[in-house]
Amino acid sequence: MNQQVRIGTAKHWAMTGAGRQNLKLVDGEIPSPAASEILVRVSAVALNYRDNLLVDQGFGFSLPGGQPLVPGSDAAGVVIAAGAAVTRFKAGDRVISTFIPGWIDGPGFGTARYPNDIVLGGSRQGMLAEYVVVDQDWAVKSPAHLSDVEASTLPCAGLTAWTALIEQGNLRAGQTVVVQGTGGVALFGLQIAAAHGAEVIVVSGDDDKLSRAKALGARHGINRNNEDWVEAVYRLTNDRGADHILEIVGGAHLGRSLQAAAVGGRISLIGILEGLEISGHFAQLARKSLIVQGIHVGHRRALEDLVRGVDTNGIKPAIEAEYALAELPTALDRLGKGPFGKVVVRVAA
Amino acid sequence: MNQQVRIGTAKHWAMTGAGRQNLKLVDGEIPSPAASEILVRVSAVALNYRDNLLVDQGFGFSLPGGQPLVPGSDAAGVVIAAGAAVTRFKAGDRVISTFIPGWIDGPGFGTARYPNDIVLGGSRQGMLAEYVVVDQDWAVKSPAHLSDVEASTLPCAGLTAWTALIEQGNLRAGQTVVVQGTGGVALFGLQIAAAHGAEVIVVSGDDDKLSRAKALGARHGINRNNEDWVEAVYRLTNDRGADHILEIVGGAHLGRSLQAAAVGGRISLIGILEGLEISGHFAQLARKSLIVQGIHVGHRRALEDLVRGVDTNGIKPAIEAEYALAELPTALDRLGKGPFGKVVVRVAA
Amino acid sequence: MNQQVRIGTAKHWAMTGAGRQNLKLVDGEIPSPAASEILVRVSAVALNYRDNLLVDQGFGFSLPGGQPLVPGSDAAGVVIAAGAAVTRFKAGDRVISTFIPGWIDGPGFGTARYPNDIVLGGSRQGMLAEYVVVDQDWAVKSPAHLSDVEASTLPCAGLTAWTALIEQGNLRAGQTVVVQGTGGVALFGLQIAAAHGAEVIVVSGDDDKLSRAKALGARHGINRNNEDWVEAVYRLTNDRGADHILEIVGGAHLGRSLQAAAVGGRISLIGILEGLEISGHFAQLARKSLIVQGIHVGHRRALEDLVRGVDTNGIKPAIEAEYALAELPTALDRLGKGPFGKVVVRVAA
Amino acid sequence: MNQQVRIGTAKHWAMTGAGRQNLKLVDGEIPSPAASEILVRVSAVALNYRDNLLVDQGFGFSLPGGQPLVPGSDAAGVVIAAGAAVTRFKAGDRVISTFIPGWIDGPGFGTARYPNDIVLGGSRQGMLAEYVVVDQDWAVKSPAHLSDVEASTLPCAGLTAWTALIEQGNLRAGQTVVVQGTGGVALFGLQIAAAHGAEVIVVSGDDDKLSRAKALGARHGINRNNEDWVEAVYRLTNDRGADHILEIVGGAHLGRSLQAAAVGGRISLIGILEGLEISGHFAQLARKSLIVQGIHVGHRRALEDLVRGVDTNGIKPAIEAEYALAELPTALDRLGKGPFGKVVVRVAA
Repeated sequence: MNQQVRIGTAKHWAMTGAGRQNLKLVDGEIPSPAASEILVRVSAVALNYRDNLLVDQGFGFSLPGGQPLVPGSDAAGVVIAAGAAVTRFKAGDRVISTFIPGWIDGPGFGTARYPNDIVLGGSRQGMLAEYVVVDQDWAVKSPAHLSDVEASTLPCAGLTAWTALIEQGNLRAGQTVVVQGTGGVALFGLQIAAAHGAEVIVVSGDDDKLSRAKALGARHGINRNNEDWVEAVYRLTNDRGADHILEIVGGAHLGRSLQAAAVGGRISLIGILEGLEISGHFAQLARKSLIVQGIHVGHRRALEDLVRGVDTNGIKPAIEAEYALAELPTALDRLGKGPFGKVVVRVAA
Repeated sequence: MNQQVRIGTAKHWAMTGAGRQNLKLVDGEIPSPAASEILVRVSAVALNYRDNLLVDQGFGFSLPGGQPLVPGSDAAGVVIAAGAAVTRFKAGDRVISTFIPGWIDGPGFGTARYPNDIVLGGSRQGMLAEYVVVDQDWAVKSPAHLSDVEASTLPCAGLTAWTALIEQGNLRAGQTVVVQGTGGVALFGLQIAAAHGAEVIVVSGDDDKLSRAKALGARHGINRNNEDWVEAVYRLTNDRGADHILEIVGGAHLGRSLQAAAVGGRISLIGILEGLEISGHFAQLARKSLIVQGIHVGHRRALEDLVRGVDTNGIKPAIEAEYALAELPTALDRLGKGPFGKVVVRVAA
Repeated sequence: MNQQVRIGTAKHWAMTGAGRQNLKLVDGEIPSPAASEILVRVSAVALNYRDNLLVDQGFGFSLPGGQPLVPGSDAAGVVIAAGAAVTRFKAGDRVISTFIPGWIDGPGFGTARYPNDIVLGGSRQGMLAEYVVVDQDWAVKSPAHLSDVEASTLPCAGLTAWTALIEQGNLRAGQTVVVQGTGGVALFGLQIAAAHGAEVIVVSGDDDKLSRAKALGARHGINRNNEDWVEAVYRLTNDRGADHILEIVGGAHLGRSLQAAAVGGRISLIGILEGLEISGHFAQLARKSLIVQGIHVGHRRALEDLVRGVDTNGIKPAIEAEYALAELPTALDRLGKGPFGKVVVRVAA
Repeated sequence: MNQQVRIGTAKHWAMTGAGRQNLKLVDGEIPSPAASEILVRVSAVALNYRDNLLVDQGFGFSLPGGQPLVPGSDAAGVVIAAGAAVTRFKAGDRVISTFIPGWIDGPGFGTARYPNDIVLGGSRQGMLAEYVVVDQDWAVKSPAHLSDVEASTLPCAGLTAWTALIEQGNLRAGQTVVVQGTGGVALFGLQIAAAHGAEVIVVSGDDDKLSRAKALGARHGINRNNEDWVEAVYRLTNDRGADHILEIVGGAHLGRSLQAAAVGGRISLIGILEGLEISGHFAQLARKSLIVQGIHVGHRRALEDLVRGVDTNGIKPAIEAEYALAELPTALDRLGKGPFGKVVVRVAA
């Protein structure tokens, strides 16, 4: 778990500091995998909200091993070569990366004082490269029925929703799930919940996106510009409220989610659009025995569970736009404009 | 569950409105139990922080059935008579009351819009009376090794700590538990955690209280006036942090507890001394996969589990002061001054 | 919970002892509900394997209150009248019965020495009657989208499968579920698992039934007469095995299910076709960390969860045959011949 | 996880086949650790029942890498040297081994068809050697307050009891735990349960051992030669039964444990003294909603939890006898005679 992702490539993106001006597409060499490593030819890298924060604001930026940082965390590709000690993969296997490298299962890394900050494309070298070398423990087999572009969306957005609703949330058929917005995590939440027989309510300010969400399996859409969304949740559930809420707005908006939650409900903190300081009313939490949980993407075993769940149910991730490797800046711009689902960079030709 | 506690007594306290001036010790008749009810001669009533909020500020005050409200929720006493359909108790049985009447097990009552507000000594008639009649489902057998004064402290303070740490928290030996202050819930948290082999840290501003807490089983005491308590938790745990925290200060102080919590840690919201609007930093919650849970005292089955746990381990509740029934106002004053543990009103001679 | 279901009716079935010759359709009076009771006009009663054991072999037979026993446990009907203290229902509500009356939530009744034997149509009066009176706590609202004939299948067969897979089993999308045969519990297991996105394998000796099971959502069918079913499970799962198995054959057949189970798998004991003495090999249990769980139908809260799950997902119970009230003996005969799903007795005209 | 424990030593025990005659104390070289490995000077190796089965009957015997097998799985020692990539340990650290090497957390290895058989001193080289080299992931820091002889008893016997009662069993104060006999797992079960505030009942045929068990914290002892132990459990629990049972006798004796178990109780399968084919009555399992669970020792994270629990509570493992390295055959004989607790081989002078 202490290994760096070593980057070799004909081409890869590299940053020497925060700001778009420091983001460069450069040439490098293709590395050889060490004994426990695999060499992967990257097909696609899905972008996340945090990639924009890192590139533009330096949020989580580092120079791993003193080298320019390769951004991007969520890759799908094909194993080209495997070190002598590799047992999990062989050349030709299709794989996806893990967001927090080395987290196999269980409670995860870090301490109270120093929470985990090991992530690809941040404290560790990332995936926006034609070839990457990773430890065999940092990858998972891709879902059979997804393309690499589709599969690249699972490691962060897909797994975050799965961890919230399934690994931690123990979702069951008949429960009500509220997702806020129609970004990557929200739509995976929608699809995962629907696959488990839950009733999904999507809250958005855009009727067109609500229609598209219903086509993906949402039972109800609430346009928050037309009505108070909490009142709408009461109405749609006969006052019962939502069993699970993916809180994607963040900040003081948590207080609204506390109101919308059913007795014994669970709210997963995902987004920070309205700020990093969350807040809400004690009485809602206490009198309804609510749980508010922080979600740190998830571990490898849960990602493997997600892959099985996706394959079994034929879930197709919602992808708003694809860009070529050289178009990364444009892709990041698109990401900043509120896409319906994911924005993906195609790497291999 | 729809029955009111009917009050009959030589004497009981009754309120016609908020404010001490409206709190009167009055005479009444001793009622007869209906078919599924028991008549209980009350021995002792333990007071809670909320009793002061109700009496002085009208917090949660009502006039059940249009009658003056009998305050007080946590009673211990002896069954004097039982209705014809009663199967759980017989005359002579020692019993304690349940804080939320009729909540047997499971997720509890209420909806998102209307959370449960059924509590004794609030929306329902309470226990500060010489005799009370309650449904047989609203009582539990007292621990064999406790006096009635001691047993009266379990229904709210004891059960709140048990629900937080055991029923929800799944505490295990070797884990670290932080309790804030030395009030009733904090000291039950201490004793329950110690009985499960956990390492307990008490945070207080009073060295004398810290000494007394250690005598009850705390491993460490932190005087928050002498050092930053979060730093002290880091020091005492080699940075690992606390697995469970009883957040009794409330409000923005939650943010400190988030810092003190270990990866995968759990913070139970108990107190509101610093306000009803809780807040804290998203990154602590997310990167450490924390859970923040609201605690609504607990259900009857958990109270029965607590009784067994208390009996098996010879736990003696910490009682700061006892008062006679007529001394209720003095007892409420004492409660407001930060007692070490519980303040109890003795009812029976 | 100590009340008997009092039977009043124009007609009801009554037994004075084991054996078909003691099963009589008789006339009686329609009773009035007591304060906490409801009077229900029964529309349909679903039969279970245990009904045949009781009628023919006296298995679980009693004379409740010294009266002839009304058999049958699983009813759907309409509330005709409600006692003064009833809060859960009003006249006109469609309801279904609970198999173990009074079990609201949590671990259930009974002791190690005396396990619970309180069941309708056994130690308590049953449902094969035109009118029944039950405590309001013994009923649950019917699913909105099911007919009464369909809804009557939930209290035992549906809830048993739900308790095994969901309430206890924490099933999630992508897991593999094996159900043995195509009886009532097996087919509910199939439909509930499919609604949660699981992959269902049905084992049967009848190709026609396997085809019908696939039409209900099974992914695979194994004809156990054509191949070793455990080997087939290995083949279909790439040796991984089944995460959940509903063991419906029973006896020494448990040993086969242990072989078929995945690491960390869970086997729910449901059926006793091959005997009451279960057995299997220790090494399978130990080396795969398996759980074998006994299922006692389930509690009311889980039945309410099932109703929501059924309604949300439009699950239609599989019903093999319907009979009129007077045709109960014929219906019991049909039940003995291995129906595909449930056999139901229509009560109301 | 694919590495063998490579043995280098001045002396180690080696087997070329089953049978005592094939067990030899031989000389070898001290190996150097590879990059991710540590070299450990072994202080003590605790023996298990399975070591006798392996040595005498060849149960689980192999020739790892074609080499003679070093038996023994549970070692405590001191790190002498660490490879360049080692981050978990440094020279001088006191460590204990993990029974199933590479199992970090979660459900574990293997498939339905091929359950895990990777264990030290079986399919992998074992610990009865003066020096061993293991992957850094295969070791855990020793409890600070235990000697190496004491610490060596944790990896199998201690962890098995912890996994059964705590990791899987969610034991809480006030529950009743039955352990059968006074071997290594039974006494750890006793001590772990007592540390969690549970009431422990020990069943044995030897009054002297029962006295010693009470001195370790058991509340009750039942001499199974003097009374029916199930009836005694009923008597001691007012018929309620045991919440947790460590089934150490095995075979058809499971049927007795099913009788002794409380509603919702949990029985952990540990021992096979009366055979590998377990059996019991369906009705006990079903009507009491029992869980029977296979225990495969446990994973590394649970071992770390155990170490903390042992340290926090000052638990001292019960050791019946210690032997020098050369006395292994005598130690194995002692083990076969039913020791009270563990038999340990001291390795370092």
